[in-house]
Amino acid sequence: MKVCKFGGTSMATAAAINKVKNIVLSDPERKFVVVSAPGKRFKGDAKITDLLYAAHKESAEVGSPASAISEIRRRFSELIKDLNLALDIGPYIDEIERNITNGHSADYAASRGEYLSAVIFARFIGGEFIDAGDIIKFRLDGSFDPESTNDLVAEIKEREGITVIPGFYGRTPDKSIKTFTRGGSDVTGAIIARGVKASVYENWTDVNGFMVTDPQIVKDAKQMSVLSYEELRELSYMGASVLHPDSIFPVRENGIPINIRNTFEPDNPGTLILKDVSSYTRPIITGVSGRKHNTTLTIKKSMLNAELGFVRKVLSVIERNGVSIEHIPTGIDAVSIIITDTELDGHEQKIVEEIRGKVNPDSIEVIRNLALIAVVGHGMARTPGIAAKVFDALAKHNVNVRMMDQGSSELNIIIGVEDADYETSIKAIYEAFFG
Amino acid sequence: MKVCKFGGTSMATAAAINKVKNIVLSDPERKFVVVSAPGKRFKGDAKITDLLYAAHKESAEVGSPASAISEIRRRFSELIKDLNLALDIGPYIDEIERNITNGHSADYAASRGEYLSAVIFARFIGGEFIDAGDIIKFRLDGSFDPESTNDLVAEIKEREGITVIPGFYGRTPDKSIKTFTRGGSDVTGAIIARGVKASVYENWTDVNGFMVTDPQIVKDAKQMSVLSYEELRELSYMGASVLHPDSIFPVRENGIPINIRNTFEPDNPGTLILKDVSSYTRPIITGVSGRKHNTTLTIKKSMLNAELGFVRKVLSVIERNGVSIEHIPTGIDAVSIIITDTELDGHEQKIVEEIRGKVNPDSIEVIRNLALIAVVGHGMARTPGIAAKVFDALAKHNVNVRMMDQGSSELNIIIGVEDADYETSIKAIYEAFFG
Repeated sequence: MKVCKFGGTSMATAAAINKVKNIVLSDPERKFVVVSAPGKRFKGDAKITDLLYAAHKESAEVGSPASAISEIRRRFSELIKDLNLALDIGPYIDEIERNITNGHSADYAASRGEYLSAVIFARFIGGEFIDAGDIIKFRLDGSFDPESTNDLVAEIKEREGITVIPGFYGRTPDKSIKTFTRGGSDVTGAIIARGVKASVYENWTDVNGFMVTDPQIVKDAKQMSVLSYEELRELSYMGASVLHPDSIFPVRENGIPINIRNTFEPDNPGTLILKDVSSYTRPIITGVSGRKHNTTLTIKKSMLNAELGFVRKVLSVIERNGVSIEHIPTGIDAVSIIITDTELDGHEQKIVEEIRGKVNPDSIEVIRNLALIAVVGHGMARTPGIAAKVFDALAKHNVNVRMMDQGSSELNIIIGVEDADYETSIKAIYEAFFG
Repeated sequence: MKVCKFGGTSMATAAAINKVKNIVLSDPERKFVVVSAPGKRFKGDAKITDLLYAAHKESAEVGSPASAISEIRRRFSELIKDLNLALDIGPYIDEIERNITNGHSADYAASRGEYLSAVIFARFIGGEFIDAGDIIKFRLDGSFDPESTNDLVAEIKEREGITVIPGFYGRTPDKSIKTFTRGGSDVTGAIIARGVKASVYENWTDVNGFMVTDPQIVKDAKQMSVLSYEELRELSYMGASVLHPDSIFPVRENGIPINIRNTFEPDNPGTLILKDVSSYTRPIITGVSGRKHNTTLTIKKSMLNAELGFVRKVLSVIERNGVSIEHIPTGIDAVSIIITDTELDGHEQKIVEEIRGKVNPDSIEVIRNLALIAVVGHGMARTPGIAAKVFDALAKHNVNVRMMDQGSSELNIIIGVEDADYETSIKAIYEAFFG
């Protein structure tokens, strides 16, 4: 039995929804369908979720969400008309408008896109609608409650026919709607897949799966056929964004494969994400991803290696400022802390002053514009020469390596280059391994 | 004006001491001479300092240092006879024996080798002896007192003729003898050089200076002509041991060059250690050094990057156990701590248990037998392709890189390989840059 999740582009137009219907009906194992809210129909279009957030904001500001709601009403009416569906969406929209006006939360407002999407698709495919609020449970503190959720999802396992469930949200014990972070329908799909013990979690989107690197940098970047949960986690963390990173954890525990598929090219086998990839023939490098805009704080002090607790003290200062760190390259009389600019912005001066007071360094140097690149793959640990090939590719393009970090995982090398060299570096590494 | 320090081999035999005399007299600027205790005369011989520690131990155990003292007496008598010196060393040795028997400290005992060596050499060269206890000052807590020392050393600056000072020790305000750590005559020389504002600190030993790498691994390793204080510090920290690492700090402040010279090849210009090496043409890599026997603790936990303070908590545990760390390679869901085996031994189990309790990781992996190699040089930051060349050399010899760390200093790349690959790696890197 398969759980299929369809993303916003797949639910945006009647044409797309017809494709979704065909996909679901073409395989009798596709019994559970999780849907996103309708996304963009064309470049520059608004996503329904954004319109719903706008409605909540409009209501808070002027006492009524009327103008955003009228746009939402128009979008859904048009969709139902195009689908030739005998469904009066009016009362649903009226209720949402009323609730938002009466002060329901932003989470409630945002969740209604998935809710309506599931109502419509259940009717369209002749399946049964289940409200995510009835089976996806959050605790009063807003954290996800996996135990209650698993028990409730297990109860729907034996249902006949096709069951359609809205993604993205659930409910707390006091009946409030609570959403996952943006893109969280991926997480709902993974939770359902675990709860019903699916043989595979199909995540249908608008690309053929994961590419070896960012196709905006390397046009025609090759597609990954198979990767491991761990590789996916590392690539996602560094910027690859096909799948919500939290969607790995529910299925990983039970070893349920994730299959990324393309609604608009259903014949492409997509990318398969597995617990154990050792039985597949695969390239040594699985993927290359990265992120610009990081900053390095380098703290120098003579004999710091003889000073017990030096790094700990520096990290305490940064932690007290609520700032997360990425890497900690250490030298002999120097230690660096690498932090993303989004984390550091607004805290830099205070952190530098506090470090100065706390460890009395000889100098603190702040260098901006560092891009981090992760070269990821299970084959790396067993194959000498990977690092040589990576650095050789960068040297040939005259890229100066500012930082490197390997050793905590046999799965990646992390390299720091200047932001200006980022695209060149990604291209050079791609070319060396896949060109 | 120059300060010259002569090491143990230079003071071990009459033949060597004659060479030292010629060196000192050949340059009228060589006005201050710091001497070590007589070292080994041949492979397998005992150093005087070791005999003095043995005397102290013998006295503590059996109430008298007689047998060790008789060996010391024999060595010094022979030396004086070979030097044709009219000096009765008997009363000096008698006093040392008496003091050790009466419970003087191990530091006192150990310091007498330098003391006697200076007494003898002052007489031999017709210079003046100054007791290090009168000018090198320690505080009551045993720490070195640079302010008092500087004032006292400045007072001897204008002396006529040649002044001979024993290395290795000084005195506390309560008149106890206190030594630096072993090899500390290098430090005494640096302190004297700073105090008298020498133009150069000549450190005369039994090698021609620093070799690019360990000559026990690469026979005929080339000699470094010029290196910076910073490079020296990094190379020393990783194992290169021509000079006591603490001897850099006194002279660095005032930019006094250190010149490593060979008593037994006085025509070789040796290695010059400078504050600023930018005006010299030099190889891109200055040196390669390393250390075997390190351990990696790898702590894995899903989503640890989202957990503020994770690394700080791990470091706190290690610090509370009094253990120093070397490097902290970090991945996405993993962080490693690299610790020398000498630091970790006896603490491993407790540290692993405490980390488990403190951060609740998914796993902790302990991997032994990691060798750390530092490739050091100021040229590295400005030259793309250094990392490529290093890793290419290792790959060609089938060495798997287990860890790498660069970024906190523009002066080094640190690489981790298995202990079994250490010599191969050093040879391969040397060959790539100097072969």
